[in-house]
Amino acid sequence: MALSGTITVTSREKFEFIDITSALQREVSRLGGEASLLVVYNPHTTAGLTINEGADPAVQSDIIGVLRQIVPDDYPFRHLEGNSPSHVMASLMGSSVTVLLDGNRLQLGTWQRIFFCEFDGPRSRTVSWKIV
Amino acid sequence: MALSGTITVTSREKFEFIDITSALQREVSRLGGEASLLVVYNPHTTAGLTINEGADPAVQSDIIGVLRQIVPDDYPFRHLEGNSPSHVMASLMGSSVTVLLDGNRLQLGTWQRIFFCEFDGPRSRTVSWKIV
Amino acid sequence: MALSGTITVTSREKFEFIDITSALQREVSRLGGEASLLVVYNPHTTAGLTINEGADPAVQSDIIGVLRQIVPDDYPFRHLEGNSPSHVMASLMGSSVTVLLDGNRLQLGTWQRIFFCEFDGPRSRTVSWKIV
Repeated sequence: MALSGTITVTSREKFEFIDITSALQREVSRLGGEASLLVVYNPHTTAGLTINEGADPAVQSDIIGVLRQIVPDDYPFRHLEGNSPSHVMASLMGSSVTVLLDGNRLQLGTWQRIFFCEFDGPRSRTVSWKIV
Repeated sequence: MALSGTITVTSREKFEFIDITSALQREVSRLGGEASLLVVYNPHTTAGLTINEGADPAVQSDIIGVLRQIVPDDYPFRHLEGNSPSHVMASLMGSSVTVLLDGNRLQLGTWQRIFFCEFDGPRSRTVSWKIV
Repeated sequence: MALSGTITVTSREKFEFIDITSALQREVSRLGGEASLLVVYNPHTTAGLTINEGADPAVQSDIIGVLRQIVPDDYPFRHLEGNSPSHVMASLMGSSVTVLLDGNRLQLGTWQRIFFCEFDGPRSRTVSWKIV
Protein backbone atom coordinates (compact mmCIF):
# COMPACT_ATOMS: atom_id res chain seq x y z
CA MET A 1 0.00 0.00 0.00
CA ALA A 2 1.74 3.11 -1.29
CA LEU A 3 1.54 6.13 0.99
CA SER A 4 3.56 8.53 -1.09
CA GLY A 5 4.66 9.05 -4.65
CA THR A 6 5.33 11.52 -7.41
CA ILE A 7 3.51 12.60 -10.51
CA THR A 8 5.06 14.12 -13.63
CA VAL A 9 3.79 17.39 -15.06
CA THR A 10 4.73 18.64 -18.52
CA SER A 11 4.17 22.28 -19.42
CA ARG A 12 4.02 23.79 -22.91
CA GLU A 13 4.06 27.48 -22.02
CA LYS A 14 6.26 29.70 -19.89
CA PHE A 15 3.27 30.47 -17.65
CA GLU A 16 0.69 27.71 -17.40
CA PHE A 17 -1.62 26.16 -14.82
CA ILE A 18 -1.94 22.40 -15.17
CA ASP A 19 -4.85 20.54 -13.57
CA ILE A 20 -3.39 17.61 -11.58
CA THR A 21 -6.60 16.68 -9.75
CA SER A 22 -7.40 13.51 -11.69
CA ALA A 23 -3.83 12.21 -11.41
CA LEU A 24 -3.90 12.75 -7.64
CA GLN A 25 -7.38 11.25 -7.25
CA ARG A 26 -6.16 8.16 -9.12
CA GLU A 27 -3.25 7.73 -6.68
CA VAL A 28 -5.50 8.17 -3.65
CA SER A 29 -8.08 5.72 -5.05
CA ARG A 30 -5.50 2.92 -5.06
CA LEU A 31 -5.13 3.16 -1.30
CA GLY A 32 -7.20 1.43 1.32
CA GLY A 33 -9.24 4.45 2.32
CA GLU A 34 -8.31 5.08 5.94
CA ALA A 35 -6.19 8.15 5.26
CA SER A 36 -7.26 11.59 6.36
CA LEU A 37 -5.06 14.12 4.56
CA LEU A 38 -3.32 14.47 1.22
CA VAL A 39 -0.33 16.81 1.10
CA VAL A 40 0.89 17.77 -2.36
CA TYR A 41 4.38 19.25 -2.46
CA ASN A 42 6.16 21.14 -5.23
CA PRO A 43 9.98 20.82 -5.04
CA HIS A 44 10.68 23.53 -7.67
CA THR A 45 11.52 27.19 -6.94
CA THR A 46 9.93 28.67 -10.07
CA ALA A 47 6.59 26.88 -9.76
CA GLY A 48 3.82 26.63 -7.21
CA LEU A 49 0.56 24.92 -6.33
CA THR A 50 -2.90 26.38 -5.91
CA ILE A 51 -6.54 25.30 -5.70
CA ASN A 52 -9.07 27.28 -7.70
CA GLU A 53 -11.90 27.02 -10.25
CA GLY A 54 -11.36 24.54 -13.04
CA ALA A 55 -14.60 24.85 -15.06
CA ASP A 56 -13.62 28.02 -16.95
CA PRO A 57 -9.96 28.06 -18.12
CA ALA A 58 -10.20 31.87 -18.16
CA VAL A 59 -9.88 31.84 -14.35
CA GLN A 60 -6.42 30.30 -14.68
CA SER A 61 -5.29 32.80 -17.30
CA ASP A 62 -6.71 35.66 -15.22
CA ILE A 63 -4.66 34.58 -12.19
CA ILE A 64 -1.54 34.34 -14.36
CA GLY A 65 -2.32 37.74 -15.91
CA VAL A 66 -2.67 39.46 -12.53
CA LEU A 67 0.50 37.78 -11.24
CA ARG A 68 2.42 39.07 -14.27
CA GLN A 69 1.09 42.56 -13.56
CA ILE A 70 1.97 42.33 -9.84
CA VAL A 71 5.46 41.00 -10.60
CA PRO A 72 6.47 42.98 -13.69
CA ASP A 73 9.29 41.85 -15.97
CA ASP A 74 10.84 45.31 -15.84
CA TYR A 75 11.32 45.36 -12.04
CA PRO A 76 15.05 45.94 -11.29
CA PHE A 77 15.70 42.35 -10.19
CA ARG A 78 19.10 41.51 -8.71
CA HIS A 79 18.86 37.76 -9.46
CA LEU A 80 20.20 37.68 -13.03
CA GLU A 81 19.00 34.38 -14.44
CA GLY A 82 15.99 36.01 -16.10
CA ASN A 83 13.45 34.05 -14.07
CA SER A 84 13.15 36.33 -11.04
CA PRO A 85 9.42 36.99 -11.50
CA SER A 86 8.90 33.21 -11.46
CA HIS A 87 10.55 32.92 -8.04
CA VAL A 88 8.32 35.66 -6.62
CA MET A 89 5.18 34.08 -8.06
CA ALA A 90 6.22 30.73 -6.54
CA SER A 91 6.19 32.26 -3.06
CA LEU A 92 2.89 34.07 -3.69
CA MET A 93 1.15 30.80 -4.63
CA GLY A 94 2.93 28.57 -2.09
CA SER A 95 4.87 25.32 -2.17
CA SER A 96 2.19 22.88 -1.02
CA VAL A 97 -1.53 22.30 -0.78
CA THR A 98 -3.31 20.17 1.80
CA VAL A 99 -6.62 18.48 0.96
CA LEU A 100 -8.90 16.60 3.34
CA LEU A 101 -9.78 13.02 2.41
CA ASP A 102 -13.07 11.21 2.90
CA GLY A 103 -12.13 7.56 2.56
CA ASN A 104 -10.32 7.52 -0.75
CA ARG A 105 -11.98 10.63 -2.17
CA LEU A 106 -10.46 14.13 -2.27
CA GLN A 107 -12.86 16.45 -0.42
CA LEU A 108 -12.69 19.32 -2.90
CA GLY A 109 -15.43 21.90 -3.32
CA THR A 110 -17.75 21.64 -6.32
CA TRP A 111 -15.70 23.96 -8.53
CA GLN A 112 -12.26 23.30 -7.09
CA ARG A 113 -9.36 21.73 -8.95
CA ILE A 114 -5.73 21.38 -7.88
CA PHE A 115 -3.32 23.20 -10.18
CA PHE A 116 0.41 22.95 -10.71
CA CYS A 117 1.48 26.54 -11.44
CA GLU A 118 4.26 26.58 -14.01
CA PHE A 119 6.07 29.92 -14.00
CA ASP A 120 9.22 28.98 -15.95
CA GLY A 121 8.22 26.49 -18.64
CA PRO A 122 8.02 24.79 -20.90
CA ARG A 123 9.58 21.83 -19.13
CA SER A 124 8.92 18.58 -17.34
CA ARG A 125 8.50 18.69 -13.56
CA THR A 126 7.73 16.30 -10.74
CA VAL A 127 5.35 16.89 -7.86
CA SER A 128 5.44 14.83 -4.67
CA TRP A 129 2.44 13.74 -2.63
CA LYS A 130 2.01 11.99 0.67
CA ILE A 131 -1.00 10.65 2.51
CA VAL A 132 -1.28 10.82 6.30
CA MET B 1 -15.13 11.23 19.20
CA ALA B 2 -15.48 13.48 16.14
CA LEU B 3 -12.26 14.03 14.18
CA SER B 4 -13.67 16.25 11.47
CA GLY B 5 -16.56 18.57 10.82
CA THR B 6 -17.75 21.76 9.21
CA ILE B 7 -18.60 25.20 10.45
CA THR B 8 -20.90 27.71 8.78
CA VAL B 9 -19.77 31.25 8.02
CA THR B 10 -22.17 34.02 7.04
CA SER B 11 -20.83 37.17 5.42
CA ARG B 12 -22.58 40.53 5.16
CA GLU B 13 -20.22 42.31 2.76
CA LYS B 14 -18.72 41.51 -0.63
CA PHE B 15 -15.23 41.61 0.94
CA GLU B 16 -15.08 40.59 4.59
CA PHE B 17 -12.76 38.73 6.95
CA ILE B 18 -14.65 36.66 9.53
CA ASP B 19 -12.90 35.46 12.68
CA ILE B 20 -13.56 31.70 13.02
CA THR B 21 -11.06 31.06 15.82
CA SER B 22 -13.58 30.61 18.63
CA ALA B 23 -15.76 28.27 16.59
CA LEU B 24 -12.73 26.12 15.75
CA GLN B 25 -11.42 26.17 19.33
CA ARG B 26 -14.85 24.99 20.51
CA GLU B 27 -14.73 22.01 18.14
CA VAL B 28 -11.19 21.09 19.19
CA SER B 29 -12.07 21.39 22.89
CA ARG B 30 -14.70 18.66 22.56
CA LEU B 31 -12.03 16.15 21.58
CA GLY B 32 -9.90 14.06 23.86
CA GLY B 33 -6.73 16.06 23.46
CA GLU B 34 -4.26 13.70 21.84
CA ALA B 35 -4.34 15.36 18.43
CA SER B 36 -1.40 17.24 17.01
CA LEU B 37 -2.62 19.26 14.04
CA LEU B 38 -5.75 21.09 12.95
CA VAL B 39 -6.22 21.58 9.22
CA VAL B 40 -8.91 24.06 8.19
CA TYR B 41 -10.02 23.79 4.57
CA ASN B 42 -12.03 26.21 2.45
CA PRO B 43 -13.94 24.48 -0.39
CA HIS B 44 -14.93 27.72 -2.18
CA THR B 45 -13.09 29.28 -5.13
CA THR B 46 -13.88 32.92 -4.33
CA ALA B 47 -12.84 32.79 -0.66
CA GLY B 48 -9.71 31.94 1.28
CA LEU B 49 -8.26 31.44 4.74
CA THR B 50 -5.55 33.38 6.53
CA ILE B 51 -4.09 33.89 9.99
CA ASN B 52 -3.35 37.45 11.08
CA GLU B 53 -3.92 40.00 13.83
CA GLY B 54 -7.40 40.08 15.34
CA ALA B 55 -7.11 42.83 17.97
CA ASP B 56 -7.49 45.77 15.57
CA PRO B 57 -10.14 45.24 12.85
CA ALA B 58 -8.24 47.81 10.75
CA VAL B 59 -5.65 45.13 9.96
CA GLN B 60 -8.33 43.08 8.22
CA SER B 61 -9.62 46.04 6.21
CA ASP B 62 -6.05 47.01 5.29
CA ILE B 63 -5.38 43.53 3.89
CA ILE B 64 -8.62 43.67 1.91
CA GLY B 65 -7.75 47.20 0.72
CA VAL B 66 -4.32 46.18 -0.56
CA LEU B 67 -5.73 43.06 -2.22
CA ARG B 68 -8.28 45.21 -4.06
CA GLN B 69 -5.47 47.48 -5.23
CA ILE B 70 -3.30 44.51 -6.31
CA VAL B 71 -6.23 42.88 -8.14
CA PRO B 72 -8.04 45.85 -9.66
CA ASP B 73 -11.63 45.61 -10.86
CA ASP B 74 -10.67 47.19 -14.20
CA TYR B 75 -8.13 44.50 -15.15
CA PRO B 76 -9.17 42.99 -18.55
CA PHE B 77 -10.39 39.70 -17.06
CA ARG B 78 -11.40 36.92 -19.45
CA HIS B 79 -13.60 35.10 -16.90
CA LEU B 80 -16.89 36.94 -17.37
CA GLU B 81 -18.89 36.19 -14.23
CA GLY B 82 -17.82 39.47 -12.60
CA ASN B 83 -16.01 37.78 -9.74
CA SER B 84 -12.58 37.33 -11.31
CA PRO B 85 -10.75 39.44 -8.71
CA SER B 86 -12.24 37.16 -6.04
CA HIS B 87 -10.69 34.08 -7.66
CA VAL B 88 -7.26 35.71 -7.78
CA MET B 89 -7.51 36.82 -4.13
CA ALA B 90 -8.49 33.25 -3.15
CA SER B 91 -5.21 31.92 -4.59
CA LEU B 92 -3.17 34.72 -2.98
CA MET B 93 -4.55 33.88 0.49
CA GLY B 94 -4.63 30.10 0.06
CA SER B 95 -7.18 27.33 0.49
CA SER B 96 -6.16 25.98 3.90
CA VAL B 97 -4.41 26.81 7.15
CA THR B 98 -2.66 24.37 9.44
CA VAL B 99 -2.42 25.06 13.18
CA LEU B 100 -0.43 23.09 15.75
CA LEU B 101 -2.36 21.73 18.73
CA ASP B 102 -1.21 21.45 22.31
CA GLY B 103 -3.64 18.95 23.84
CA ASN B 104 -6.98 20.50 22.93
CA ARG B 105 -5.73 24.06 22.56
CA LEU B 106 -4.90 25.83 19.28
CA GLN B 107 -1.28 26.98 19.50
CA LEU B 108 -1.81 30.42 18.01
CA GLY B 109 0.48 33.38 18.66
CA THR B 110 -0.68 36.07 21.09
CA TRP B 111 -2.22 38.30 18.40
CA GLN B 112 -3.19 35.63 15.90
CA ARG B 113 -6.72 34.80 14.84
CA ILE B 114 -7.93 32.52 12.05
CA PHE B 115 -9.95 34.34 9.39
CA PHE B 116 -12.30 33.16 6.69
CA CYS B 117 -11.66 35.57 3.80
CA GLU B 118 -14.91 36.30 1.97
CA PHE B 119 -14.23 37.78 -1.46
CA ASP B 120 -17.66 37.33 -3.07
CA GLY B 121 -20.27 37.91 -0.39
CA PRO B 122 -22.64 38.38 1.12
CA ARG B 123 -23.54 34.71 1.41
CA SER B 124 -23.43 31.64 3.61
CA ARG B 125 -20.41 29.36 3.32
CA THR B 126 -19.12 26.20 4.94
CA VAL B 127 -15.55 25.53 6.04
CA SER B 128 -14.24 22.03 6.74
CA TRP B 129 -11.77 21.06 9.44
CA LYS B 130 -9.98 17.88 10.35
CA ILE B 131 -7.77 16.89 13.25
CA VAL B 132 -4.79 14.57 12.80
CA MET C 1 11.83 11.41 21.47
CA ALA C 2 10.78 15.00 20.84
CA LEU C 3 7.97 15.45 18.33
CA SER C 4 7.70 19.19 18.48
CA GLY C 5 9.75 22.20 19.48
CA THR C 6 10.68 25.77 18.71
CA ILE C 7 13.63 27.47 17.12
CA THR C 8 14.74 31.05 17.66
CA VAL C 9 15.29 33.43 14.78
CA THR C 10 17.08 36.76 15.14
CA SER C 11 16.72 39.38 12.43
CA ARG C 12 18.99 42.39 11.83
CA GLU C 13 16.89 44.26 9.26
CA LYS C 14 13.31 45.45 9.06
CA PHE C 15 12.76 43.19 6.04
CA GLU C 16 14.86 40.04 5.97
CA PHE C 17 14.55 36.39 4.93
CA ILE C 18 16.39 34.03 7.28
CA ASP C 19 17.24 30.50 6.15
CA ILE C 20 16.06 28.10 8.89
CA THR C 21 16.54 24.88 6.90
CA SER C 22 19.64 23.64 8.73
CA ALA C 23 18.13 24.30 12.14
CA LEU C 24 15.01 22.36 11.19
CA GLN C 25 16.97 19.51 9.60
CA ARG C 26 18.99 19.23 12.84
CA GLU C 27 15.79 18.85 14.88
CA VAL C 28 14.36 16.25 12.50
CA SER C 29 17.66 14.30 12.46
CA ARG C 30 17.42 13.72 16.21
CA LEU C 31 14.19 11.78 15.79
CA GLY C 32 13.79 8.11 15.05
CA GLY C 33 12.88 8.50 11.40
CA GLU C 34 9.35 7.16 11.12
CA ALA C 35 7.70 10.52 10.69
CA SER C 36 6.09 11.59 7.43
CA LEU C 37 5.49 15.35 7.62
CA LEU C 38 7.12 18.41 9.14
CA VAL C 39 4.86 21.40 9.78
CA VAL C 40 6.63 24.68 10.54
CA TYR C 41 4.41 27.33 12.10
CA ASN C 42 5.01 31.05 12.53
CA PRO C 43 3.08 32.54 15.50
CA HIS C 44 3.79 36.19 14.59
CA THR C 45 1.46 38.51 12.66
CA THR C 46 4.17 40.60 10.96
CA ALA C 47 6.25 37.68 9.69
CA GLY C 48 5.71 34.67 7.44
CA LEU C 49 7.26 31.51 6.09
CA THR C 50 8.13 30.57 2.54
CA ILE C 51 10.16 28.04 0.59
CA ASN C 52 12.28 29.33 -2.30
CA GLU C 53 15.77 29.35 -3.80
CA GLY C 54 18.62 29.68 -1.33
CA ALA C 55 21.69 29.59 -3.60
CA ASP C 56 21.52 33.22 -4.72
CA PRO C 57 20.60 35.68 -1.93
CA ALA C 58 19.35 38.05 -4.64
CA VAL C 59 16.21 35.89 -4.95
CA GLN C 60 15.31 36.72 -1.35
CA SER C 61 15.90 40.45 -1.82
CA ASP C 62 13.90 40.37 -5.07
CA ILE C 63 10.90 38.81 -3.30
CA ILE C 64 11.14 41.43 -0.56
CA GLY C 65 11.50 44.18 -3.17
CA VAL C 66 8.40 43.11 -5.07
CA LEU C 67 6.41 42.73 -1.83
CA ARG C 68 7.37 46.29 -0.86
CA GLN C 69 6.18 47.50 -4.26
CA ILE C 70 2.91 45.51 -4.02
CA VAL C 71 2.25 46.76 -0.48
CA PRO C 72 3.45 50.37 -0.61
CA ASP C 73 4.26 52.33 2.54
CA ASP C 74 2.10 55.23 1.34
CA TYR C 75 -1.15 53.22 1.10
CA PRO C 76 -3.80 54.89 3.32
CA PHE C 77 -3.65 52.21 6.03
CA ARG C 78 -6.20 52.37 8.85
CA HIS C 79 -4.10 50.30 11.30
CA LEU C 80 -1.95 53.02 12.85
CA GLU C 81 0.98 51.18 14.40
CA GLY C 82 3.16 51.81 11.35
CA ASN C 83 3.58 48.13 10.51
CA SER C 84 0.50 47.63 8.33
CA PRO C 85 2.47 46.58 5.22
CA SER C 86 4.09 43.87 7.37
CA HIS C 87 0.70 42.40 8.26
CA VAL C 88 -0.33 42.27 4.60
CA MET C 89 2.96 40.63 3.59
CA ALA C 90 2.49 38.04 6.36
CA SER C 91 -0.81 36.94 4.80
CA LEU C 92 0.66 36.92 1.26
CA MET C 93 3.48 34.56 2.33
CA GLY C 94 1.43 32.44 4.76
CA SER C 95 1.70 31.30 8.36
CA SER C 96 3.03 27.77 7.87
CA VAL C 97 4.91 25.50 5.51
CA THR C 98 4.56 21.74 5.26
CA VAL C 99 7.48 19.60 4.10
CA LEU C 100 7.45 15.87 3.34
CA LEU C 101 9.94 13.71 5.25
CA ASP C 102 11.85 10.71 3.99
CA GLY C 103 12.99 8.99 7.16
CA ASN C 104 14.72 11.81 9.00
CA ARG C 105 15.50 13.89 5.93
CA LEU C 106 13.54 16.92 4.70
CA GLN C 107 12.42 16.17 1.12
CA LEU C 108 13.23 19.60 -0.31
CA GLY C 109 13.97 20.24 -3.98
CA THR C 110 17.58 20.78 -5.03
CA TRP C 111 17.45 24.58 -4.76
CA GLN C 112 14.84 24.88 -2.03
CA ARG C 113 15.45 26.36 1.40
CA ILE C 114 12.91 27.19 4.12
CA PHE C 115 12.85 30.89 5.00
CA PHE C 116 11.50 32.81 7.95
CA CYS C 117 10.21 36.06 6.43
CA GLU C 118 10.84 38.95 8.81
CA PHE C 119 8.70 41.96 7.90
CA ASP C 120 9.02 44.00 11.11
CA GLY C 121 12.55 43.55 12.44
CA PRO C 122 15.07 43.70 13.76
CA ARG C 123 13.98 41.46 16.62
CA SER C 124 14.09 37.99 18.07
CA ARG C 125 11.29 35.59 17.12
CA THR C 126 10.34 31.98 17.74
CA VAL C 127 9.05 29.50 15.19
CA SER C 128 7.25 26.30 16.17
CA TRP C 129 7.55 22.96 14.41
CA LYS C 130 5.82 19.63 14.77
CA ILE C 131 6.36 16.25 13.20
CA VAL C 132 3.47 13.94 12.32
